[in-house]
Amino acid sequence: MPSEPGDLRHSYLDRLECGRCSAGYDAAVWQGLCTCGSPLLARYDLDLAAKQVATDEIAGRPPTLWRYHEILPVLSADSVVSLGEGMTPLIPLPRFGAQLGISNLQIKDEGLLPTGSFKARGAAVGVSKARELGVRRIAMPTNGNAGAAWATYAARAGLESLIVMPVDAPAITRAECAVSGARLYLVDGLIGDAGAIVADAVARLGYADVSTLKEPYRIEGKKTMGLELFEQIGWRVPDVILYPTGGGVGLIGIWKALRECQALGWIGPKLPRLVAVQATGCAPIVRAFEEHADTSEPWPDARTIAFGITVPKALGDFLVLRAVGETGGCAIAVTDESILGAQQRLARTEGMFICPEGAACFAAAERLRQTGWLGQDDEVVVVNTGAGIKYPTTVDVQVPVLSKGATIPA
Amino acid sequence: MPSEPGDLRHSYLDRLECGRCSAGYDAAVWQGLCTCGSPLLARYDLDLAAKQVATDEIAGRPPTLWRYHEILPVLSADSVVSLGEGMTPLIPLPRFGAQLGISNLQIKDEGLLPTGSFKARGAAVGVSKARELGVRRIAMPTNGNAGAAWATYAARAGLESLIVMPVDAPAITRAECAVSGARLYLVDGLIGDAGAIVADAVARLGYADVSTLKEPYRIEGKKTMGLELFEQIGWRVPDVILYPTGGGVGLIGIWKALRECQALGWIGPKLPRLVAVQATGCAPIVRAFEEHADTSEPWPDARTIAFGITVPKALGDFLVLRAVGETGGCAIAVTDESILGAQQRLARTEGMFICPEGAACFAAAERLRQTGWLGQDDEVVVVNTGAGIKYPTTVDVQVPVLSKGATIPA
Repeated sequence: MPSEPGDLRHSYLDRLECGRCSAGYDAAVWQGLCTCGSPLLARYDLDLAAKQVATDEIAGRPPTLWRYHEILPVLSADSVVSLGEGMTPLIPLPRFGAQLGISNLQIKDEGLLPTGSFKARGAAVGVSKARELGVRRIAMPTNGNAGAAWATYAARAGLESLIVMPVDAPAITRAECAVSGARLYLVDGLIGDAGAIVADAVARLGYADVSTLKEPYRIEGKKTMGLELFEQIGWRVPDVILYPTGGGVGLIGIWKALRECQALGWIGPKLPRLVAVQATGCAPIVRAFEEHADTSEPWPDARTIAFGITVPKALGDFLVLRAVGETGGCAIAVTDESILGAQQRLARTEGMFICPEGAACFAAAERLRQTGWLGQDDEVVVVNTGAGIKYPTTVDVQVPVLSKGATIPA
Repeated sequence: MPSEPGDLRHSYLDRLECGRCSAGYDAAVWQGLCTCGSPLLARYDLDLAAKQVATDEIAGRPPTLWRYHEILPVLSADSVVSLGEGMTPLIPLPRFGAQLGISNLQIKDEGLLPTGSFKARGAAVGVSKARELGVRRIAMPTNGNAGAAWATYAARAGLESLIVMPVDAPAITRAECAVSGARLYLVDGLIGDAGAIVADAVARLGYADVSTLKEPYRIEGKKTMGLELFEQIGWRVPDVILYPTGGGVGLIGIWKALRECQALGWIGPKLPRLVAVQATGCAPIVRAFEEHADTSEPWPDARTIAFGITVPKALGDFLVLRAVGETGGCAIAVTDESILGAQQRLARTEGMFICPEGAACFAAAERLRQTGWLGQDDEVVVVNTGAGIKYPTTVDVQVPVLSKGATIPA
């Protein structure tokens, strides 16, 4: 039966639009950056979507990020490449919150996603859309987890992948790429050096470049963090969201989710204050925020235990700064020492072993509470971007070895 | 307002019953083994529960294992210790299934649980119930993942924990115990040696013994794997379920879920054939199954890459054998070589990096299909008990290291 004008659509994707100069692009073909060099953002027919889907209906759908398919870019359900990703838990932290002086502290635990990190969201949506548009080979630089996720979803989709990561990236992410059959290289440098190698390979070897924000769809996956959070607390927003910021796609995604949900009438006008958390060893966004700049400058000699946010210069820095500024948020840097301290204290107090990037947000929350920027009764949500089990070297393990038949002292 | 006789109860827990001699025990106090030395099983007032909860109602509840609270042992919602566990995805494996000649192959991916393994289910329910009954300190031997999960949930609950594991247990599980503040020891031996050390500590130091099947509630958590699976395919059962079997609690739990769901009228009379999968280096259940024995004999010199199922003698062996026998299932052992092969092939074909214990089930499925025990059109579900990211040493990673500005060859 031919489709009728009133038929429900799987996706209300309309076009792509430059995040800086607002130039429009056709979403029916694979696109990279705008000619002005900036990232493209997916735009939807939200007026039509608002008429055809309500939050009540979403409530009855399976607990994956695909429950928001009307405002995701994949046009057909048949194109979806899924490993069951999404609807990660939002967990109250009453005892740790009490330690920090925050009475309503919660964690959105993105460690419970395929590949153990939030990167699975961008990869699921990005790979699905790439395959839908006929892409067969993808390439990307990564600080580890994104490469692991994209290699995994590429394998699931039957695509080839080329991944380049710094030698200091978490070791387990190498295994994830290797076991998925990715073409994997390490580089003795940082993510920018990996990016240069990938750019060269893309130009010569016919890979689609899926580097951070160089294609428009990863961010669409990331925005589902925001959608889920808003749904989980009853289609409203918390007072503050803290987010560990490297490339910043997740934060931009949450901000995009916020604006789209407002346009759809799914949430009210209130904005959560978005906080970009970085490490003192690599804090270009924080410096730009403090200097009231629109963009960041490359950070020299970047180094932090929170390796995932070791991004000296992010392509989307202006969008991160805009999101933080528009929402009345802030950007803050914390030391590696405070990151590891927060990681240990959270695990002892609440039983959650999280990644150092996530832990940075708790260190930041403590600082912001001390300065009074966070109030005691603020509803605060920390996004933990990955599972601690991917970071064995962050824990100091000193264990006695017993022989058979030994006795444990009182 | 005082409760009325017709009030809905959070749990229909009624009593404990010995799995071997059927002796009854009071569920209102903490209990260990039956005086006959066998495990106690939780029994519910299923007739009453059937009248007061329907599957339609469950469908609208949050996606955690606590959605089945009426047939879980925790009496009050306030007692629940949760990190968002449950409703792991059931994922079709069309391409890998085609390779194995199984047209309807699915995986229940338990890697997407807190602590990255199915052990979180038993720990969440076991710790919740222990705390509800006033327990303050728990102790257990473990092959790694159970200890990590119980240490984690103990920290969340504010309980002390003592964990003893073999030196060969996955290294990451040490970090998980340590970061949670557990008292952790390694033993130069196998899980039985750890168990002897724990038994001594329990007798002397006042810990509650939460060893496999030595308390009645871990299995209640594990049975939710079955409950979720039945719900996910529309409150019915598949033809075959393959399960990696060490202590066997998960398999016994699925069998218990099956019988309870039948009694509740939630599923029909059909039974899935339950398959206990072991490694050739430690296959006591398989040997007992082949010899038509009711219990197993201790396996000498146990050793396999699938460390989680290195259990030379399981306390619940007779229950595993009964579950396999009653359902028309079987027990089968596979080699370490075939386990690692299945792990790699699944990752390349479907993008899923699973633990060796889960991979053993795919190696078993391939063998059972070759012998004709599995038919081409059987609906087959493999339970993957944990995430591959906890097992970095199972992947051979050979990666070229490039210098900055290098070029990738065509």
